[in-house]
Amino acid sequence: MQIRLAARPVGYPKTSDFSIEESPIPEPGEGELLLKTQYLSVDPYMRGRINDRKSYAPNVEIGEVMIGRSVSKVIASNHSDFQPGDIVWADHGWQAYGISSAQGLRKIDPSLGPISTALGILGMPGLTAYFGLLEVGKPKARETVVVSAAAGAVGSLVGQIAKIKGCRAIGIAGSDEKVNYAIDGLGFDGAFNYKTTADYRTELQSLCPNGIDVYFDNVGGTITDAVFSLMNMWGRISVCGQISQYNLIEPEMGPRMMAGFIGKRLQMQGFLVGDFADQHAEGLQQMSVWLKEGQLNYREDIVEGLENAPQAFIGMLRGDNIGKRLVKCEG
Amino acid sequence: MQIRLAARPVGYPKTSDFSIEESPIPEPGEGELLLKTQYLSVDPYMRGRINDRKSYAPNVEIGEVMIGRSVSKVIASNHSDFQPGDIVWADHGWQAYGISSAQGLRKIDPSLGPISTALGILGMPGLTAYFGLLEVGKPKARETVVVSAAAGAVGSLVGQIAKIKGCRAIGIAGSDEKVNYAIDGLGFDGAFNYKTTADYRTELQSLCPNGIDVYFDNVGGTITDAVFSLMNMWGRISVCGQISQYNLIEPEMGPRMMAGFIGKRLQMQGFLVGDFADQHAEGLQQMSVWLKEGQLNYREDIVEGLENAPQAFIGMLRGDNIGKRLVKCEG
Repeated sequence: MQIRLAARPVGYPKTSDFSIEESPIPEPGEGELLLKTQYLSVDPYMRGRINDRKSYAPNVEIGEVMIGRSVSKVIASNHSDFQPGDIVWADHGWQAYGISSAQGLRKIDPSLGPISTALGILGMPGLTAYFGLLEVGKPKARETVVVSAAAGAVGSLVGQIAKIKGCRAIGIAGSDEKVNYAIDGLGFDGAFNYKTTADYRTELQSLCPNGIDVYFDNVGGTITDAVFSLMNMWGRISVCGQISQYNLIEPEMGPRMMAGFIGKRLQMQGFLVGDFADQHAEGLQQMSVWLKEGQLNYREDIVEGLENAPQAFIGMLRGDNIGKRLVKCEG
Repeated sequence: MQIRLAARPVGYPKTSDFSIEESPIPEPGEGELLLKTQYLSVDPYMRGRINDRKSYAPNVEIGEVMIGRSVSKVIASNHSDFQPGDIVWADHGWQAYGISSAQGLRKIDPSLGPISTALGILGMPGLTAYFGLLEVGKPKARETVVVSAAAGAVGSLVGQIAKIKGCRAIGIAGSDEKVNYAIDGLGFDGAFNYKTTADYRTELQSLCPNGIDVYFDNVGGTITDAVFSLMNMWGRISVCGQISQYNLIEPEMGPRMMAGFIGKRLQMQGFLVGDFADQHAEGLQQMSVWLKEGQLNYREDIVEGLENAPQAFIGMLRGDNIGKRLVKCEG
């Protein structure tokens, strides 16, 4: 089974923007491997990759298999480095079987934890939180860190890492269940539900009595406007995502905020996790230590069946998930 | 004579927002000096200081003497470090005579150049250009630097320093005369008049065939929107001023631009010249070397008479000046 892009989404993607096709199991050629998908990751960045617009990476063309990372099992191998049964971190997209030249393939050590964590806390989302907070946001002990999409794969880790570093961690999320999870499950100092809060700024003011030093932004839009107005002198804004903007048909207008950058000496920086590629091993090492020490919690939100990947993706864009959303394919 | 703030300006200041009052020449007390203003500086930052809104420095209250830096002459001194006749860089605002405790007072060496340059190329505007470009914008040789308000006190120096550093320098200014001055007088590689150009983006594209690496922003608004859309990967935005926004009665809306920060890894930082106080001496030293070597040109736009300071200030906010606007007081 393969899932291909059938149409360029206008606004929020629809399931009809994807086509599900049965396909024969491919044969690996010389030096190649046959992989079978175990878990597929659906992530916000994929929304940008199915647009027509130029992005930081090539777009998926109509008719192509949808891109995405997976945890896969080696079924057959014509490559001396990999044996059948090996579990690997792969990049063959939304399909049940994939062929790989072994380039970019990385073995997963199942003794480190459940293999699915290679797509979450011990994978790109974990590293995104780690480097985006520590290298871009540069929080210092006793500072206040605010993170949006606080119950998501990345945000849930940002708040916990902030706590490990001695900061006050405040989250913004889209349901009471997420808010409770952030506070009770993850140890955030506070959080609020932006869908039921009329005045974000007042709410943030009461949760951040000393102002905001670091903002890890996953969402953009009006939530971000409110955070900006409360940034402290020398504050840092780590721009990880802008999910509120990805499904807009027309670019959104908002209050201009650059004048505030001068007096407060704010610093804002966008990043991608790949910018820190040469530090990934060290970041994973630290994350797995914290995980084993019980300093980090995580949740997975698992949708069963590759054929449900489009719905899983669309739902994630709407914020249905708590923790890392994955698609589990039949073993 | 003293010029006091008579009313909080709504939008652009009017001359009636200031009052001109005759006042007796004050007497210096023990340890104090009597100063006579020679040149007064009018600068964009002053607009923020006459608002009600909280700014990075205390506001001028209604009835108070308007703040501002000056080059002044010591008339009488009860302080052993200063003698009558000394020329000093002072902070006593818009008045013909001021009393100083000598705190923050700095002697100006008239052999370095005309004393008025202590308010321009060898003063705060010069240091603002120097540190805002080199420390915040961090241009590398062969990169493209764009500066707005390119014929102003700061912008005119930013482009020239960019050229010294081996960059392509492109300016944006508000008249054909300013554009010609930037290109012919200052050696910019190109410039355009935003008041007569319909499509800033297309114009910038033709002037910046390799995109924009560093943007030194003095203005904000729609000019900045156009520059943003052409920023290169890893581009830096040095936020020095937002003069297009200072006189607005309602905050302006603009297209949200944070999503572009992610893929391009843009970095934006606001600064004030005082952030680099411990490097000012070194910056001045370098600027005066470049000036003596003929690598920097400057112009002064001098308005005669303290009583004309309000008009000089308001005109500067509207972009009447080419180069540094000063008010010359009677000797």
